[in-house]
Formats: sequence, structure tokens, C-alpha cells
Amino acid sequence: MVKNTKVVYKKLPPALPAVGEHIALETSELDIDNVKLDDGDILIKSLVLSADPFLRARMREPSIKSYAPAYEIGQTMDGYGVAVVVKSAHSVFKEGHYVYGGIPFAEYSHIPKSYVSSLLLRDEAKRDQLPLTYYVGILGMPGMTAYVGFYKYAKPKKGDTIWVSAASGAVGQVVGQLAKAEGLFVIGSVGDDQKGEYLLKNGFDAVFNYKTSDMDEQLTKLAPNGIDIYYENVGGKHLDAAIAHAKNHARFAMCGMISQYNLENPEPVYNLSWIPAKRIQMDGFVVLDHEETIADEFTTKMTKMIKDGKIHFKEHVAIGIEKLPETLVGLFSSATFGKAVVQVAEQ
Amino acid sequence: MVKNTKVVYKKLPPALPAVGEHIALETSELDIDNVKLDDGDILIKSLVLSADPFLRARMREPSIKSYAPAYEIGQTMDGYGVAVVVKSAHSVFKEGHYVYGGIPFAEYSHIPKSYVSSLLLRDEAKRDQLPLTYYVGILGMPGMTAYVGFYKYAKPKKGDTIWVSAASGAVGQVVGQLAKAEGLFVIGSVGDDQKGEYLLKNGFDAVFNYKTSDMDEQLTKLAPNGIDIYYENVGGKHLDAAIAHAKNHARFAMCGMISQYNLENPEPVYNLSWIPAKRIQMDGFVVLDHEETIADEFTTKMTKMIKDGKIHFKEHVAIGIEKLPETLVGLFSSATFGKAVVQVAEQ
Repeated sequence: MVKNTKVVYKKLPPALPAVGEHIALETSELDIDNVKLDDGDILIKSLVLSADPFLRARMREPSIKSYAPAYEIGQTMDGYGVAVVVKSAHSVFKEGHYVYGGIPFAEYSHIPKSYVSSLLLRDEAKRDQLPLTYYVGILGMPGMTAYVGFYKYAKPKKGDTIWVSAASGAVGQVVGQLAKAEGLFVIGSVGDDQKGEYLLKNGFDAVFNYKTSDMDEQLTKLAPNGIDIYYENVGGKHLDAAIAHAKNHARFAMCGMISQYNLENPEPVYNLSWIPAKRIQMDGFVVLDHEETIADEFTTKMTKMIKDGKIHFKEHVAIGIEKLPETLVGLFSSATFGKAVVQVAEQ
Repeated sequence: MVKNTKVVYKKLPPALPAVGEHIALETSELDIDNVKLDDGDILIKSLVLSADPFLRARMREPSIKSYAPAYEIGQTMDGYGVAVVVKSAHSVFKEGHYVYGGIPFAEYSHIPKSYVSSLLLRDEAKRDQLPLTYYVGILGMPGMTAYVGFYKYAKPKKGDTIWVSAASGAVGQVVGQLAKAEGLFVIGSVGDDQKGEYLLKNGFDAVFNYKTSDMDEQLTKLAPNGIDIYYENVGGKHLDAAIAHAKNHARFAMCGMISQYNLENPEPVYNLSWIPAKRIQMDGFVVLDHEETIADEFTTKMTKMIKDGKIHFKEHVAIGIEKLPETLVGLFSSATFGKAVVQVAEQ
């Protein structure tokens, strides 16, 4: 018998989810030897589970449609993760294989045949000698989001000035380093001076703390001629400032708006009437739309950059599934520094 | 001696300009026979002058940069127009020629050589047997704006649902008819039932009055599956509604935001955090950027559509330059119906 702790979605959070009230741990016991698998099923053990801002959007009224399905009250939450197959009745996914994809937030999960096909084999994680956490970070959804948003939507040109918001986050830090490698002038904004200091040593030309300084003054100083690219991870006042400081023909890669996800009422934005006159191009995007076409190029290029030491990745690694709820909630309060991930078990 | 009335920019309007206070008529006398032209200069007589929403943006603090220069206090305003050369010391622009471009809002204007080169000869206006007003409307800047926004930014596909705001305006009515011709389902919004009735007979499949009905209810009813394209002429609540009703991958052609131009403080917009999840693409554009590349194609195609009776153009024609200030101000209160233009003199 083994302990099997899982993270359960209990109640719709009207604002910031509270651990215990909206997201709670539940523990049961599992008799692995006696788990009965139907043909094609697998039993997996979670190794790393990823805390990502988009999971907050899944805690919504189910009647509201979006690209990621709403969680149902009482269900075990799920998100990106890497797991190892511990028991298999599947013809391809065998014991010992690593799988990647939407993994239930539990120590052990019985995955039915119909769902197995949505997972990817990720045995390269054993060979590459990179931290397993990277496969849900710089080499996973957030890294690919950074890559797609930057190359496909921001249309970077050498010499451009880019502003990356939430710059030390899972996506922002990768965008900034890609931009630096392409010869851009890279400005990042963060909510904590320690994060800013880290970024200045890792690809960013300039950083400001939006909590302790005036965004407008900072952008006037750091980008006196305006910004060519805004990489949007925050929303609200950040977006207003980006519009105010955009050059003509600026590109806004609209990745997410973390400042808005826990508000009962969204924050107003005022400067939109500059969009026509400045010919601003705002592109909302979701990395899922690009996975098939870009996965090989992305994985090859990013793995090489990491191994060559050309890109670094700051992580906030919490140990044990018990830390998952607070790590997820911490994303929204600058409590995490770098990509937030939970190491559930050793490889 | 002839009377020469002009429209003078007197004072920065904090909100809606007032005729007499911010924009005023001034009349002097002109002795045409004794006007002395330097080499390359011309004297023109205005025939039609165009009242366009973007002129409001030129009444601003000159320190604020934008694509169209700010008016200077005390200057004669100018805008699109067609004029006839009445006296010439220029080698190409001769007496009797029609010229088009930025024309001073005066009955007669002495145009220096350096400025003449910015004007275009438009003698086809004499041959085409179309109303001269069309050259500042459907065949001028507003028509080309509609054309560029629709074909270059809205990426229309047969069967798409398009919502055109300010649908009976100079741009909106052309967009709607182009969209209908391309096989789209065309929804227009207007602030007046009479305008709506006109549009239903001229290319629009459905129309609603945003002043007397609930925008959200109307869009739910008219576009139950959402909108593929939003042609933005209004801003504010219209933009929020468009985001709320946008399908995934919707395109927003961001042409202008007439509801915002006379507000002391811009109206807030709340729904922007849907941009990433819905993959909304918002493109601000200014027709000036496309004039050179698109002018021939546009003029040929649009002239043919007009002559073949495939597109109609509703105009609000005021007679006499004295009507110009009130016509311009009327743009912002639904007081005009169709493209607003002032017939200053007969051909």
C-alpha cells in the first residue's frame, strides 16, 4: 500500500483561490499490486507537476467556454507534468517510460486507454541529463509559449526595443534571453528587486520594479524613443503603459494577463484609442495552436541553447505534492521566483 | 473683389468643439486679379471640402505626436478636398485643373510651390460624371480606408460574420457593402433607426440601434455563434461587446474610435483579458501607409463598382463653407447621416 495524495478542486474561487477552501489536498491509500488495468490503460507515478497561471482560468463557471476546459467541482485537478509508467496494459507506453502531457495532480493516477493517446512519450528526459523540471518549463509549454510569441507574433528585428512584463516568470525570462540573442534591447518589469538583479545578469539590458517605481517614468527613461515590441503577460496598467510608450507599428504579443485572473471585476484599460493612430498590432495567441508545427524546431533549438549555456532558466522548485496548492496560488502574488514547479517524486 | 470665408482654429477644445469658440468663420475680401503668384504657386478655389473624424485628433496639444500634424491656434484649418486652379504660375497645375489633397478650409487659397507638390491632379473628376463629393468620400480617403481595413486587415472569408460599427458612416457603409459582395453575413450598428433602415436596403443583413437596444442582447441574437470580424470605428462599450462576442481567431480591423475623440477622459474597456484565450488579432491601421501601393487597384475597382450600381454611397452634403464647422461637430453626435461633406462652390 502506498499513500496517494491528490489536489482536488473544491469550490469556485471568486478572487484569489484559498488553499483548503477552493483547492484542497486529499489523501487515500493505493494498493499498486492489485490495481486492475483494462486493455490499454496505464498506472503512472507523477514526477514533476507544473504550476501555471492558465490553470486559474480553468477554475471558472463551466458555461464559459475557453480553450482549456473548466475544472469540475470535486475533480482532481490536472496540468502539465512528467510521470513514469509504473504498471501498463498498453502496447506502447510500457513500465518505466516517461510520459508528458496533462497529468492529474496526484501522486499516482490510473489513466484510461482513451486518455493515454493524449500523452507523449518523453524518454529523452532520461538521456538529456537536464533537470526533469525543464520538461514542463523551458522545454515545455512555457518555453514554447515564449518561443512562439516572440518569433511568430512579435516579429523581432535586430535593434528593436522590447518590453517584457512579468519578466522573471516562466515565459518572460525565456523571451528576454531570446530577444537578447537576436540583438534587441531588452527591458523587463518585475515586482521584486531580487528578480530584477537576476535578470540583469541573464540577458536583460534594463529592469524596473513596477511596484516601487513609476512605470511611465521608467519607460520614458529606458525607452526614450518608445518600444517596438511589448510582450504582454500582465494586463491592466501594464497594458496602458505599453500603449502609451509604443512606437508606431509596435507589435504586442498578447500571451496572458496575470494581473487580471484573480479580480472579481477586471481592471479598466484606457489608452486603446491610440491603437489606430499608432498602428499597433495586438495578437492574442495560445501555444496549443502551434505545438504540432513548431515542436521539433523548438525542442532542437532550445535544447542546444541550454546545453551550450546560451540560455538559463530560473526555477522555483517546491518539493512534495503537498506544496502544489500554495505554489499555484503563489504565482499571483510574486511569491514565486522563476518557473514554479513541484517535484513530486525523484526519478 | 470676391468674398473669401475661411474656417479658423481658435482654441484647443477640451471636449466637443464649439462653433464660434474653438472653430470659427472669418471672412475677408480677395482681389483675384491682383494676387501675385511666385514661380510655382497656384491660386485655388475650393469646390468640396470633407468633414472627417480624424480632424478632431488634429485639435490637440502640439506636443502630442501623431500621424496627422496638430493644428496651430489661429491657423486656417485644412482637410481633404477638391479645388479648381483659378490662377497659376506652375508648370503642370494650370488654370482649370482639378486638384485633390489637403486643401485649406477657405473659399480661395494661395498655395505656395512647396505645397503644390503634395496635391494630386484629379481631372478625371470632370470626365467620370460622378458627384464631385465622391472624390473625398467613396473614392477618397474614407473609401480607401474601408477598402484597406477590410481586405488587408480583416482577412475576410466567405461565410464569415462581420460586425461594422458606425455602420452608416463614410467608412462603415462601404465596408458593409464590400463584405456583402464577398459573401459575408453583415451586421451594422447605428445610433438612429432611419440609418438602420437605409442600411438594410444597402448590403447589410442585420442592423441594430445601440442607443435604443442592448448591444449584448442584439449580438447574441444576430450572431449566435459569435463574430469573425469586428470593424472598429467607435471604441469604448462597442469594443468591449466585440471582444465578448468574438469567436476564436477573430480579426479586429481597428480603424478609429469616434466615441472617444471628444471625451475629457477616455472610456474604460474591461474585456481585454479575453484577447489571448480567444486569439483575437487587433490591427490598428492608417490608410496613409497604403495609399501608394493600393491607390490604382482601389480607384479602378471602386469606380467600376459604383458605375455598375454594385455599391451605393450615402452622403450628407451641406452647401456653403459657412456650414463646415457645424458639419464637422455634427459627426460626433449622429447629426450627420452618411459621409459628411461641404459643397463650397459649383464646378
